[in-house]
Amino acid sequence: IHESHSFISNTLSSPLYADAQNLQNQIDELSRLSDTPAPSVTRVLYTEKDVLARRYIKNLMGLSGLSVREDAVGNIFGRWEGDEPELAAVATGSHTDAIPYSGKYDGVVGVLGAIEAINVLKRSGFKPKRSLEVILFTSEEPTRFGISCLGSRLLAGSEALAKALKTTFDGQNISFFDAARSAGYANDQDDLSSVFLKKGTYSAFVELHIEQGPILEDEGISIGIVTAIAAPASIKVEFEGNGGHAGAVLMPNRNDAGLAGAELALAVERHVLESGSIDSVGTVGILELHPGAINSIPSRSHLEIDTRDINEERRNIIIEKIHQSASAIAKKRQVKLTEFKIINQDPPALSEKSIIKAMEEASKELNLSHKFMISRAYHDSLFMARVSPMGMIFIPCYKGYSHKPEEFSSMDAMSNGVKVLALTLAKLSLE
Amino acid sequence: IHESHSFISNTLSSPLYADAQNLQNQIDELSRLSDTPAPSVTRVLYTEKDVLARRYIKNLMGLSGLSVREDAVGNIFGRWEGDEPELAAVATGSHTDAIPYSGKYDGVVGVLGAIEAINVLKRSGFKPKRSLEVILFTSEEPTRFGISCLGSRLLAGSEALAKALKTTFDGQNISFFDAARSAGYANDQDDLSSVFLKKGTYSAFVELHIEQGPILEDEGISIGIVTAIAAPASIKVEFEGNGGHAGAVLMPNRNDAGLAGAELALAVERHVLESGSIDSVGTVGILELHPGAINSIPSRSHLEIDTRDINEERRNIIIEKIHQSASAIAKKRQVKLTEFKIINQDPPALSEKSIIKAMEEASKELNLSHKFMISRAYHDSLFMARVSPMGMIFIPCYKGYSHKPEEFSSMDAMSNGVKVLALTLAKLSLE
Ligand SMILES: [Mn+2]
Ligand SMILES: [Mn+2]
Ligand SMILES: [Mn+2]
Ligand SMILES: [Mn+2]
Repeated sequence: IHESHSFISNTLSSPLYADAQNLQNQIDELSRLSDTPAPSVTRVLYTEKDVLARRYIKNLMGLSGLSVREDAVGNIFGRWEGDEPELAAVATGSHTDAIPYSGKYDGVVGVLGAIEAINVLKRSGFKPKRSLEVILFTSEEPTRFGISCLGSRLLAGSEALAKALKTTFDGQNISFFDAARSAGYANDQDDLSSVFLKKGTYSAFVELHIEQGPILEDEGISIGIVTAIAAPASIKVEFEGNGGHAGAVLMPNRNDAGLAGAELALAVERHVLESGSIDSVGTVGILELHPGAINSIPSRSHLEIDTRDINEERRNIIIEKIHQSASAIAKKRQVKLTEFKIINQDPPALSEKSIIKAMEEASKELNLSHKFMISRAYHDSLFMARVSPMGMIFIPCYKGYSHKPEEFSSMDAMSNGVKVLALTLAKLSLE
Repeated sequence: IHESHSFISNTLSSPLYADAQNLQNQIDELSRLSDTPAPSVTRVLYTEKDVLARRYIKNLMGLSGLSVREDAVGNIFGRWEGDEPELAAVATGSHTDAIPYSGKYDGVVGVLGAIEAINVLKRSGFKPKRSLEVILFTSEEPTRFGISCLGSRLLAGSEALAKALKTTFDGQNISFFDAARSAGYANDQDDLSSVFLKKGTYSAFVELHIEQGPILEDEGISIGIVTAIAAPASIKVEFEGNGGHAGAVLMPNRNDAGLAGAELALAVERHVLESGSIDSVGTVGILELHPGAINSIPSRSHLEIDTRDINEERRNIIIEKIHQSASAIAKKRQVKLTEFKIINQDPPALSEKSIIKAMEEASKELNLSHKFMISRAYHDSLFMARVSPMGMIFIPCYKGYSHKPEEFSSMDAMSNGVKVLALTLAKLSLE
């Protein structure tokens, strides 16, 4: 009714309509490809469920008239050829892998929603000038090989990652390449440089995602326009002690690697709070004890630590303090700090001004309330920003929940996001 | 040479000789029945390796002329009929199960060593009056079902355990009875009261075991004569919080169940040290985080706590303090304390004076240095003490190591232990 704005009325033959019920059905269907019972979702890189999810997405891309291509690690591209196919394309997309016992919206909204945005534009009579591409990124989540945004890091040209993957194994000692081949990828080459995007492949990349925070829901706002993505880092730590029998070794003779791990977990929290900024976060999501028996003193503890900030320097100070604490704890408890490895330490990314403007205008034309915000979670967009102008669209989700079964976004919220994405893509396609 | 003492010269036709090399070969052979690579040993209740180990022991019992019987949960009895078989028998034995990544001597020395003690007596020309029995106890270790000394608790007549086992499942959700049946036990009955020993079945029970502490080795003493076994307790704790995304949920909005677990682990250590006694110990051997992903705030933590003391009251005060800390931590961190379950809280056991005397005399007659000591680890003897007079013989082990691959006891040490056991059994058999 209020869609009588310049772009829509000038360019499209009919108003934008997103089929939210169909999108919801697809989300529900995809969620059943899980290795844990509903409502939880567990879909790990190159497992049977991941392969089935990829097949499902490729099928939908085909039904929407997109031509499908896959690269050597399984990044999937669905292309709608524009009137000027030689121009850099406009891309959108996200991921469909899901960490253990998580939910069904994270990432998925940005893949199924992107295909629906293509459908929206096709129904509206839109003709792209620049080609439009929908991307499914391989392994945004670090679950299997400890590497987040594996697909987009490679697309962004990470030589270091391409090299590291040659000696990367999962927890079951399966190599990255064996796993990739079992899913039908990396068939006749170990050289992953074929995955690297040529500079200028895309004139813009836009990702639709649930907020994974409570702000939009709390404030009753429909659309979050992301201006920057926080800088993530992840660290692996291992302590080793002598272990021994829980009854027989007296307290003064112990060097308990589990208690060293527990102390470091609490130190991570303390150092993050010491930063004094609400934007600093730190998490010990993994803490494993070996041998893991009630009557054995832990002889080894393994921690994986995630810390992020929108300020890179502040985050790096936190990492340095964590390192100092790990050394001090090891000394005090007479355990060995056998590993302190910074797995990644990425810089933050800024959204492109012209894309922010396109998202803002799209929201206004659709009469949707919007807010500029920071993404505290990181996304494939962080890495796409290295090879393309980038922007992100957030939609509200229930209580900000994510990475757990209670994750939820309403059909209304998704419909709004899909329409803003569609209109943004249309605008960028004509630029 | 110095064996010219009363009992040996009066009763036996030749001096006592233990074949330590054969015993060592058997220990090495048994250690290869493991689910983890050498030198570690992992042999868990009712697994294929446990079943193979049982077959190996039954075969050795047969070769030593013992008649073999098994009960409904797989306690195995090898009997050497005495001249007066209607009298209460004298028993000895230990366990062959091994916690993950442990060593090859814990328990095994008390089973293979007991069979060798029978061989020693047979070679010496001894004729028992009371029958002698070698017992292999089922599941001394709590690995699979969280229940330590499962076999000996049942032998001691635990109605509570017999009942609990009807609803007990392992980590893979396999019921105790399905597991037992897969190993060939509990075939046509769910009623475990058949396992309970009649009072007066045994006039004495003696267990040979490595010390699992450093005292005998440090002091250069050959034989530890155990006068009491410390009182063990084990506790399961679970905290639950909201979890969420490690990037998106800001620190003030978190209720991290993993950090609650880490705090409780450190509180256990603190409360044990507060007791002021060297004899108080406490261990968090298991601390598991859910979902266990680097980018997820833990929504659940599961701890298993072991605490022991030779003073029951002091140990119970520690348990009470751990409970108070768990509640306080839950309140402070706004997580739920969804479980605080005391799995067992056993009283300590005292050795029988007459058995202590027999062990002391045996050591003296064999010219072996000995020392009275407390067992800080607990054993099947703790439960056998409920239905039989009890005693334990300790031998030195390398650095007191146990429950890890470095566990070691020399052939000399084992030979001494076997001879003291043989002579003690002989004495008790004639009483
Ligand atoms: Mn995620
Ligand atoms: Mn995501
Ligand atoms: Mn043990
Ligand atoms: Mn033992």
